[in-house]
Amino acid sequence: MSPTDDDIQTLPQTLKTALNQPTEDSLQGLCDAHAGADLSDALEALPEDQMLDFFRRLDVSCTADVYAHLEPDHQTRVLHALDEDHASQLMSALSYDDAASVLEGLQDDHAESLLETLPDDDQEALETLLGYPEESAGRLMTPEYATVQPDWSVGEAMDHLREHHELAETVNTIFVTTPEGELLGWVRLKELLLSRPTTSVRERMHTDVVSIAAEEDREEAAHRIGHYDLDVLPVVDDNGHLLGIITVDDVMDVLRAETTEDFHRMAAVGDMVLSLRDASMSLLYRKRIGWLLILVAVNIFAGIAIGYYEAAIEAVVALVFFLPMVIASGGNAGAQAATLVVRSLAVNDIQLRDWWRLGGKEVLVATALGVTLAAAIWVSGNWLGTVEVANAIALGMFFVIIFGSLFGLFLPFALTRVGFDPAVASAPLITSVIDIVGILIYFGVAVAMLGL
Amino acid sequence: MSPTDDDIQTLPQTLKTALNQPTEDSLQGLCDAHAGADLSDALEALPEDQMLDFFRRLDVSCTADVYAHLEPDHQTRVLHALDEDHASQLMSALSYDDAASVLEGLQDDHAESLLETLPDDDQEALETLLGYPEESAGRLMTPEYATVQPDWSVGEAMDHLREHHELAETVNTIFVTTPEGELLGWVRLKELLLSRPTTSVRERMHTDVVSIAAEEDREEAAHRIGHYDLDVLPVVDDNGHLLGIITVDDVMDVLRAETTEDFHRMAAVGDMVLSLRDASMSLLYRKRIGWLLILVAVNIFAGIAIGYYEAAIEAVVALVFFLPMVIASGGNAGAQAATLVVRSLAVNDIQLRDWWRLGGKEVLVATALGVTLAAAIWVSGNWLGTVEVANAIALGMFFVIIFGSLFGLFLPFALTRVGFDPAVASAPLITSVIDIVGILIYFGVAVAMLGL
Repeated sequence: MSPTDDDIQTLPQTLKTALNQPTEDSLQGLCDAHAGADLSDALEALPEDQMLDFFRRLDVSCTADVYAHLEPDHQTRVLHALDEDHASQLMSALSYDDAASVLEGLQDDHAESLLETLPDDDQEALETLLGYPEESAGRLMTPEYATVQPDWSVGEAMDHLREHHELAETVNTIFVTTPEGELLGWVRLKELLLSRPTTSVRERMHTDVVSIAAEEDREEAAHRIGHYDLDVLPVVDDNGHLLGIITVDDVMDVLRAETTEDFHRMAAVGDMVLSLRDASMSLLYRKRIGWLLILVAVNIFAGIAIGYYEAAIEAVVALVFFLPMVIASGGNAGAQAATLVVRSLAVNDIQLRDWWRLGGKEVLVATALGVTLAAAIWVSGNWLGTVEVANAIALGMFFVIIFGSLFGLFLPFALTRVGFDPAVASAPLITSVIDIVGILIYFGVAVAMLGL
Repeated sequence: MSPTDDDIQTLPQTLKTALNQPTEDSLQGLCDAHAGADLSDALEALPEDQMLDFFRRLDVSCTADVYAHLEPDHQTRVLHALDEDHASQLMSALSYDDAASVLEGLQDDHAESLLETLPDDDQEALETLLGYPEESAGRLMTPEYATVQPDWSVGEAMDHLREHHELAETVNTIFVTTPEGELLGWVRLKELLLSRPTTSVRERMHTDVVSIAAEEDREEAAHRIGHYDLDVLPVVDDNGHLLGIITVDDVMDVLRAETTEDFHRMAAVGDMVLSLRDASMSLLYRKRIGWLLILVAVNIFAGIAIGYYEAAIEAVVALVFFLPMVIASGGNAGAQAATLVVRSLAVNDIQLRDWWRLGGKEVLVATALGVTLAAAIWVSGNWLGTVEVANAIALGMFFVIIFGSLFGLFLPFALTRVGFDPAVASAPLITSVIDIVGILIYFGVAVAMLGL
């Protein structure tokens, strides 16, 4: 494989040519020569019927790895295009965690009828996985793993691993359980390899095992794997029995999805699983119009606030000139503070209880920002208007920056406190609220200082 | 260990108590009982002199793992607080990639004098790592790994791995090289375990090896590991010789740092390595004031634009009432489009060449958004004013949404094209530009339609 950029750039074209030939030989050759991840990207760049053709014509020994890398909606479409036998073979060839996530995306009756075509043990394993809550650690785990027991000798353990090698997807770390499956500890494969065969597993076992309950959030699983630098995280039930394992590459996908969700929320875009490339126009419209309409409603109050100070505007028109600068600065300072807090909460850098300490720090930082920006606007104000107007807009700027910064800092904490995702504290939402309050502060200060 | 939330919550207090005792026994006990990642978090919650005390009083066999998990600036401060011998021992106890990133953060002369205290081979290995460009794959790799040769038997290969086990940090995948170090392929440890000892390594070797050049960007390394689901990515020189390996846990840290950078840039916050928790007030001020001042300057033009339409405002005051709603909606639609594009570019979901296709789609989505929002504002406009005013502001809204969406979509592509990070297309920057153009469009349409 050793993919060069050129190979990958031309792969869609090469695939197309191979799909146009009557025999499967050159298709099969491409399958052998390229990584599933690259082939799936290339297929997604082709028209849908050609993509479906690829899966119809080739055997699952080749297509399963390609299929596992497709976007969720393409996975569903391919499954619909295959006959029952072929679909069933494909599902059996996937790893359980991949198969579970495909089934999750199907209509209930389709998923059920597909499950029934699978061998009994696959069916049972998948039903168990799908029984855990969505976005839980249980959904993310694979129930395929090999364990050893503490009373075994290292020689017995190695024999067992050799026999069950197809189960031992990750072999750096092997978990040690009782015969009933209670998780006791772990041992590095390396340590088994280096020990005399007569040594007992118990002697080599580490008992400082970090695990997660099946019902916990998959984000917590990702956090634990990152925090403790684990290859693999064991998933246990309430009695401490091992149910499955989550590997580090599983959580990379989770982290990516959760981060994308945060990005979208912070820009007031609804949650969407699909990639931008594949999202339909109607989906994009629906995910964006909701917040835009809410924000229009919020901004009615900004209009009302301006209307309230009509007399002041007529008396000193220069005030309107500096208005966008002041309220935009307040919104910007608020968006900065909110983003810093949202991201720090997301990576567990700060906790809810840090609010007071960060709030105190923010008051001082906002004061420094406010003084600097007030000085900048005072200079322009003095140049374009009178000293009195310059003083009024500078003081208005100062208070708007203080309000904006503290509101931006506070909102994500408040949302977390009441059980919302802090990322809902989007820049557009914060900007809109600060617009309204900023207009009131700005004109309020001006009216008081200029005696309007 | 098996950390419960309670244990971790009380760990700072427990550590404090242990630090106040004259002997090291209970400190040592804590070190043995807790993960380095948890101890480092707890120490960072204590006053600095107590944190330094911990590293002064305990041996590196205990502190190295804790040290490796500290924030970069704390790492530097600890190193300054230790005497030369102790500092040198600590550096030797770290993995090469961790040690290199610590040295990176020191003053040049301090780094150099510290390097000289290290054993020759450590010194040489670290100097090589530090010779690669910052944020390159070479900086991220560890030069400690074990390889096997194709002409060896599986038995010889296993003996070699047993002898060099301390090098074989990751053993799931073993790389196969010529005696001169040229990378030929890879083999799973599992496959070696399952083969007869007389089989040759060549027979078991896979040649579809994905690698990266040492000079390439570390983000590309992270991308390849994620895309191909690798445990470990080999780093090679221009002649295809193996230089080191990058493991999946190394790139998790990279992804986290790069994502935080994107979040901060999109909220117009300067790059900062530090966590929000530990960032000083002066750092926070400096990272935020730059963009705020630039945006104030940009917003002067919004003031000028309003000033230009003073006569229109005086003629129909209702126009000012709806202005915040229209320009805020344009800014929001633009921020949505920009965020979708920035995130999709960051995760390689779309490429620069997709601009035309996405642009076409965005025109249609923006038209639908514009029509909906125009209808919403027409209703309020008709209710509060005349039909003529309602028509004018609705049409203004429509064009502002179209402009905002396309500008938000286009800016990240344009920035990428000229070699900037697309995340510089921050919501505040986009909002400010759309404010100015939005004001001109809005009043321009109103003046034309109302004949002002």
